[in-house]
Amino acid sequence: MKYRVKQIDYKEIIKDIAPADLKALAQAKERMDQLVKPLGSLGKLEDISIKIAGITGNVKNKLEKKCVVIMSADNGIYEEGISSSPKEITLLQTINMTKGICGIGVLSKASGSDLRVVDIGIDSDYENEKIVNAKIRRGTNNFAKCPAMTITEVELAINTGISIISDLVEEGYQIIGTGEMGIGNTSTSSAVIMALTGATANEAVGRGGGLTIEDFEKKKKILENALILNKPDKENPIDVLAKVGGLDICGLVGCFIGAAFYKVPIVVDGVISIAAALCAYRMNNNIRDYMISSHISKEPAFIVAENEMALAPMLDMNMRLGEGTGCPLAFSIIDLACSVMNNMATFSEVSIDTEYLVDNRK
Amino acid sequence: MKYRVKQIDYKEIIKDIAPADLKALAQAKERMDQLVKPLGSLGKLEDISIKIAGITGNVKNKLEKKCVVIMSADNGIYEEGISSSPKEITLLQTINMTKGICGIGVLSKASGSDLRVVDIGIDSDYENEKIVNAKIRRGTNNFAKCPAMTITEVELAINTGISIISDLVEEGYQIIGTGEMGIGNTSTSSAVIMALTGATANEAVGRGGGLTIEDFEKKKKILENALILNKPDKENPIDVLAKVGGLDICGLVGCFIGAAFYKVPIVVDGVISIAAALCAYRMNNNIRDYMISSHISKEPAFIVAENEMALAPMLDMNMRLGEGTGCPLAFSIIDLACSVMNNMATFSEVSIDTEYLVDNRK
Repeated sequence: MKYRVKQIDYKEIIKDIAPADLKALAQAKERMDQLVKPLGSLGKLEDISIKIAGITGNVKNKLEKKCVVIMSADNGIYEEGISSSPKEITLLQTINMTKGICGIGVLSKASGSDLRVVDIGIDSDYENEKIVNAKIRRGTNNFAKCPAMTITEVELAINTGISIISDLVEEGYQIIGTGEMGIGNTSTSSAVIMALTGATANEAVGRGGGLTIEDFEKKKKILENALILNKPDKENPIDVLAKVGGLDICGLVGCFIGAAFYKVPIVVDGVISIAAALCAYRMNNNIRDYMISSHISKEPAFIVAENEMALAPMLDMNMRLGEGTGCPLAFSIIDLACSVMNNMATFSEVSIDTEYLVDNRK
Repeated sequence: MKYRVKQIDYKEIIKDIAPADLKALAQAKERMDQLVKPLGSLGKLEDISIKIAGITGNVKNKLEKKCVVIMSADNGIYEEGISSSPKEITLLQTINMTKGICGIGVLSKASGSDLRVVDIGIDSDYENEKIVNAKIRRGTNNFAKCPAMTITEVELAINTGISIISDLVEEGYQIIGTGEMGIGNTSTSSAVIMALTGATANEAVGRGGGLTIEDFEKKKKILENALILNKPDKENPIDVLAKVGGLDICGLVGCFIGAAFYKVPIVVDGVISIAAALCAYRMNNNIRDYMISSHISKEPAFIVAENEMALAPMLDMNMRLGEGTGCPLAFSIIDLACSVMNNMATFSEVSIDTEYLVDNRK
């Protein structure tokens, strides 16, 4: 059954996305600084719990209902032979995700998270009721030869992402992770980040799943040429996405917009996710207030985007599987961050003589 | 009631500590490489689950019973005025730990871990049945003036740590975290690491809880002078501990020895913990096989010790509270690492055509 995208147009909501709740942020910071520990000594656990307060508007939070959204799509750039895996993997692994036997399936379950697997552009027709059929088209065009897709398709994919987040919020989910499956999507992500930032191929292209040196050089050349051919407007993320993006990235852009609109924290995980996050950020800087970054990716384009947004990833895992596999790890740490805010005593609550503890805060 | 240290002498067991189980390591690596993902793509999650297999001897592990051991002690070096907190904090926070309202109490509970709080040398007499009274003496001597303690005291503290681990193993605990409380213990840890490695004060001394520039320079001078005065033998960790160590560090050395002897994974967390880990490692290199590192500490001495042992911390949290607060975070990630090994499908288990997935592993 085809997914029905809700009547939510990103153009109508994007300008209304507000920054984090300044009052809740201030109250959360105030409480955090009263807890029995030296100021700032719990580092990113403090930052995360305060950020979440700013998102939800409440100082104390318990984010029990978690979901990782997987956007799956094929990419026309695959034709250029610069991916280390065959294209059929996109569908096969998307199906495996619904069986809970691949990386994201296992890690989600172990961390108490659900998965929402969305076909937003797999180049194949099949029947699987566990996969949301929100296919915009069967894969994109090869952007080495022409634009990847039309503006209308980009917009529909973004609105689909927002609609999926709207569903999840209605179902009671309190935190969202971003995952993907799409052979060729490190190429599209690098191209999007290069187009938005002006980074060169040497600065922003990695060896992906395991390219040879020759194929790596070829990948850089193809991406550089594609940008020359398509001339994406670096000030216009929609134009960049249409020319050198992918449907998975567009869907994730919608997820970031939707999470900010509905005020739920959303985890940025890996280079494809951060390419989408950067597009959303460029459309409205406030959206960054709703993002939490999981692990440091070794993909060079990730670092370029991270340098602009300064999201400060919490994990250093050498992970490069993708699929959103860093999200369940981040969920676990975020839960612990919230427990600090919720359950540590303040100096004034400690019944024993607190004079020394107050001194300790100097 | 005074804790009765079991009749286990570190000198008798230290030589018998074996490296990790090579057969289990190989089997775990083999299984990990058969899981449906590109080789090595789950990075440290793979490394951790394989390491744990080597420790327990089983490929699949579920470490449900967790405990953080806190070693609390006072340090005579406090007299030199190079700590940012008053000495009374050692006892006050040790008591707070048993109430579950400080950082380690809250984080342990939230991660499903227990706490074992051990007074191994607090400079105070008090009654608290939630604290294990294994006090060796009331604090150490000021090692700026004379050795911190005797060899006999070091050995008793080490044997106490082993005995505590023996208790925990008997009680069914499957993974141990290392925590501490002891004002002045960044000074003792820096001194121990400097003595063992030859690192200078500029390389190994940090500003601790928040020293002024003046006090920071004073701290470096005092530690350098103390090493000149005491002349610790860098080849002999027991001598180093007696001259410039602390009872908390000695107790943790025993924990590392005990964990390796009883074959349970033990988490290294922060600069005090890694000073103890380095002592244990120097006594028998095999002990490193049982250590898992939580987060990157910003204390310079941590980096010096980490450079020697290459434990590859998994978290980058800007945390500097101590208490073992990184252990519960590490426990959560370790649980997820084990779930990958236990629950992901192998290529041969995937019922759909696996030809493409096998290709994907190139």
